[in-house]
Amino acid sequence: MGKEIKTAAVRWVEGLEFEAITGSEHRLTLDANVKAGGQNHGPSPMELLLVGLAGCTGMDIVDVLKKKRQEVTGLEVRVEGTRAETYPMVYTDIQVTYVVRGKNVSQKAVEDAIQLSETKYCSASAMLGKAARITSRYEVLPE
Amino acid sequence: MGKEIKTAAVRWVEGLEFEAITGSEHRLTLDANVKAGGQNHGPSPMELLLVGLAGCTGMDIVDVLKKKRQEVTGLEVRVEGTRAETYPMVYTDIQVTYVVRGKNVSQKAVEDAIQLSETKYCSASAMLGKAARITSRYEVLPE
Repeated sequence: MGKEIKTAAVRWVEGLEFEAITGSEHRLTLDANVKAGGQNHGPSPMELLLVGLAGCTGMDIVDVLKKKRQEVTGLEVRVEGTRAETYPMVYTDIQVTYVVRGKNVSQKAVEDAIQLSETKYCSASAMLGKAARITSRYEVLPE
Repeated sequence: MGKEIKTAAVRWVEGLEFEAITGSEHRLTLDANVKAGGQNHGPSPMELLLVGLAGCTGMDIVDVLKKKRQEVTGLEVRVEGTRAETYPMVYTDIQVTYVVRGKNVSQKAVEDAIQLSETKYCSASAMLGKAARITSRYEVLPE
């Protein structure tokens, strides 16, 4: 079996607006915010990196907690990226906050799941972590 | 003025499906593909990194070519990422293809725009380029 390849393409619409289509055949509109010269008709490219990171690690957490037989009823992953002030304005710091809800969910299981995602499974975290300092915190709440 | 902060959050829906909301108040659904245990109800997190990269560099190209007074009538940016075979399965190689359409668009102007994006402006490229080898090619086509 060959290596896995993922694809995406964007097509310019007008201004700084683009329409994207992914290899999995989903479409979305991208745009810059008004301050950056766009019209905010869609998420910005740099926001999408954060969405990708949040989704990637979120899927890991769901998966690992399910394997650990934890009764998770809700999970939210919030991500905040702080950009450098000079070009290329990368994120220098990314803060990830996990809010897990469930029935008697073990704090230890959540910690393990986050650590596995951060250090082993999450491709987005591994990639963005080469450029930014990624830190995380979590809350476990009753259902 | 403080540093620019971007945010995003994802909330678990079911299976590996998440709903995302960005700081710019746009919503999108994320999911894993069927092979990865999802239902392909939305783009995957790793596809979103590619969309972010394509959009980021695409906006730069539009911007720079406009400043260079090139009559661009179309731009497509295609991105292909090849993943490592072992966890965390980062993209090791990312190939970016720019297809520019317009009236007498200068090849030199396109080359300059791509280079400026790759080396100076594009935040996503600068970040993902720390983990993957990013290569690019372009075509300039008549309108």
